[in-house]
Amino acid sequence: MVPYLTTALTGPLLELEKRLLDAQPTIEHWFRQQWKEQAAPFYTSVDIRNAGFKLAPVDTNLFPGGFNNLNPAFMSLSIHAAMGAVEKICPDAQRLLLIPENHTRNTFYLQNVAVLAHILRQTGLIVRIGTLIPEITQPTTLELPAGGRLTLEPLIRKGDRIGLEGFDPCAVLLNNDLSAGVPEILKGIEQTIMPPLHAGWATRRKSRHFAAYQNVAIEFARLVGIDPWLIDPYFNHCGKIDFQARQGEDCLAEKVDEMLKKIRVKYDEYGIDQPPFVIVKADAGTYGMGIMTVKSPDDVRELNRKQRNKMAVVKEGLEVSEVLIQEGVYTFESINDAVAEPVVYMLDHFVVGGFYRVHTGRGADENLNSPGMHFVPLAFDETCLTPDRSANPDATPNRFYAYGVIARLAMLAASIELDESLNEAEAAAAA
Amino acid sequence: MVPYLTTALTGPLLELEKRLLDAQPTIEHWFRQQWKEQAAPFYTSVDIRNAGFKLAPVDTNLFPGGFNNLNPAFMSLSIHAAMGAVEKICPDAQRLLLIPENHTRNTFYLQNVAVLAHILRQTGLIVRIGTLIPEITQPTTLELPAGGRLTLEPLIRKGDRIGLEGFDPCAVLLNNDLSAGVPEILKGIEQTIMPPLHAGWATRRKSRHFAAYQNVAIEFARLVGIDPWLIDPYFNHCGKIDFQARQGEDCLAEKVDEMLKKIRVKYDEYGIDQPPFVIVKADAGTYGMGIMTVKSPDDVRELNRKQRNKMAVVKEGLEVSEVLIQEGVYTFESINDAVAEPVVYMLDHFVVGGFYRVHTGRGADENLNSPGMHFVPLAFDETCLTPDRSANPDATPNRFYAYGVIARLAMLAASIELDESLNEAEAAAAA
Repeated sequence: MVPYLTTALTGPLLELEKRLLDAQPTIEHWFRQQWKEQAAPFYTSVDIRNAGFKLAPVDTNLFPGGFNNLNPAFMSLSIHAAMGAVEKICPDAQRLLLIPENHTRNTFYLQNVAVLAHILRQTGLIVRIGTLIPEITQPTTLELPAGGRLTLEPLIRKGDRIGLEGFDPCAVLLNNDLSAGVPEILKGIEQTIMPPLHAGWATRRKSRHFAAYQNVAIEFARLVGIDPWLIDPYFNHCGKIDFQARQGEDCLAEKVDEMLKKIRVKYDEYGIDQPPFVIVKADAGTYGMGIMTVKSPDDVRELNRKQRNKMAVVKEGLEVSEVLIQEGVYTFESINDAVAEPVVYMLDHFVVGGFYRVHTGRGADENLNSPGMHFVPLAFDETCLTPDRSANPDATPNRFYAYGVIARLAMLAASIELDESLNEAEAAAAA
Repeated sequence: MVPYLTTALTGPLLELEKRLLDAQPTIEHWFRQQWKEQAAPFYTSVDIRNAGFKLAPVDTNLFPGGFNNLNPAFMSLSIHAAMGAVEKICPDAQRLLLIPENHTRNTFYLQNVAVLAHILRQTGLIVRIGTLIPEITQPTTLELPAGGRLTLEPLIRKGDRIGLEGFDPCAVLLNNDLSAGVPEILKGIEQTIMPPLHAGWATRRKSRHFAAYQNVAIEFARLVGIDPWLIDPYFNHCGKIDFQARQGEDCLAEKVDEMLKKIRVKYDEYGIDQPPFVIVKADAGTYGMGIMTVKSPDDVRELNRKQRNKMAVVKEGLEVSEVLIQEGVYTFESINDAVAEPVVYMLDHFVVGGFYRVHTGRGADENLNSPGMHFVPLAFDETCLTPDRSANPDATPNRFYAYGVIARLAMLAASIELDESLNEAEAAAAA
């Protein structure tokens, strides 16, 4: 089953897909140059919105949690790419410690951990799973819904090394986004940590990512001769917001207003008659908490108590004081009348697969990754590697290729963003 | 359909597969170390013989000609691996010139060229095909049996660059093994040539390859704690043979006798009651010409005229004056009573697939890659990347993993062999 676009593809996206397809040699050559300069993150997933007239990333996750949603038929792609990533980042490693999120009941997430551990084991690493959950004080085996088991073990710190009972790993892979800050037990350890600690939400900001993405998108758009807006959502940022105390609302309302106007100009230019909207979300954080769809500046002035509470905290009870204001990108892909949003998965700088988040209860202008969101994952039935020039620009393999290109642009932006934040951290440490 | 072993796997191979499976982390870690030191060839295929008691490479091809026989379901693995190879060897390349063998009627081979060109195009290269065939003086389009077409164009040399009319490539990929020597038109060109010219049969010797393999096998066998003989066929070499003039027969007969005795000792040690045999083949050359199965020293003294003629020349009419004497390894794999021999394909240092040569008209002690050999290719239905420790050591994914390990050992040997011959060529040029 292949998802299809409900919009008739005669507008700018068809043009965009055609450009990407025609420019494939230029694009791949350009990416090769980027990877000579820039090291890709260990792994990345990118949420993409396909508005028919626009194709853009809206979230870039450096601790992807849906490997279980990928097509098992392409598992070998993940193994290959993981082999390459291990070779580059920790060629001497034989034993890898995987540290997942602190979930014990979210069986979908645990299934992701199991698949990830499987991929890493197939590269020849000895993988064991350590948990930050304080209640787990001895090895604890959880049954998985799809069969199989997962054993979580308590972390043990010895001097500058982290490990498990009887297990001294050469490297640590985080599948925990550190929303609650960097745990003491992980600070100052001598083993390689992937992604680095500053990739966690304690340090990372979406606004920094999209600033890096903007530069990438401008360069790429020049390369293939397109308007960068077609692949880049506008964004802005408000600091010092306090939703509960109703502080910072004016900043937010003004910037929302400004952005809606900018979007309207573009919509007019491209003859798009949908109403513009923006997404307001926590600048640090994930799991789609603290997110709202806004169509007018008044929307952010008239939040009721429930909405305020919802926006005020994200995962791990963290308070939201900085928000990202992001151009809303419609998702006009649907499957059997359900809205669908593609998520592309990468290991090292290789696209290894993806899936659609399919959601029946949501609109084309809503976030599909939010709490209580019971999306159905639908694995891509083709890789993003096999564009077919003899087919239409919007034929499935070509659309998947376009997704893979946009996702890699976001991943490149993430790697630039991580370098910048590392430099800042080092400058701060030296000062 | 999965091929099965007719031998009951209770002997040394089961033990060998078990060792490889148990040592997977050690093996993959060891390979990672090797690839830090050693650059893999652009592509390699390895013919493997599975004797039940022994699993060994018998031929390593640096210009593989069967990409069309791989499972299309795993095409994306080839694309990934080719992307990696291009990044390493010619990251700046956008235009690639592919130079195939001088065949215009061998449609199986042409299909291979088409698949190879397709893989390379999917990495984003602009690929055109240049031919060394002197009769082709203008672009010539050939129809392929599986549909599609292939256009061969005459090569044009301009100064130190090779190209086609209107096409100045950044790199050249040879799928021509240079059996007839290095053509003048390719000498001294400034573009990167992959594999390098000294990988062609004008320079390469099988005995040099198996000498390098022997060292690799000894180190690897020590690593996993096995007898190196279980993965390494004995070999020897005779120079200055003239089959037509019946010169050098004594050298050959003596070495054959010596080797048969050595094999018998091993067969006794492992309780194998099959008769030992050796394969005599041209030390330079391919396409399975100039090959014979020998079970007694008398066999090489009593060659009739037809056999002499068959041994005397290989592809392109090249005379055979050096031969490799190689321990014969039975192939005890069969499919529906037909003998089968696995061939493993690699791009860069990644296994990307493989197939069985299935042949009804041949015995377990015969070469399956020889002229007039109409084998049926049977694509591996799994990758060589997914060993399953919960299954038997001889379960299909585990056997394929073992094939992949042995093939990578041979590929590693080939890369060491190429470095040695390059050093010699450079030393000779400097002298």
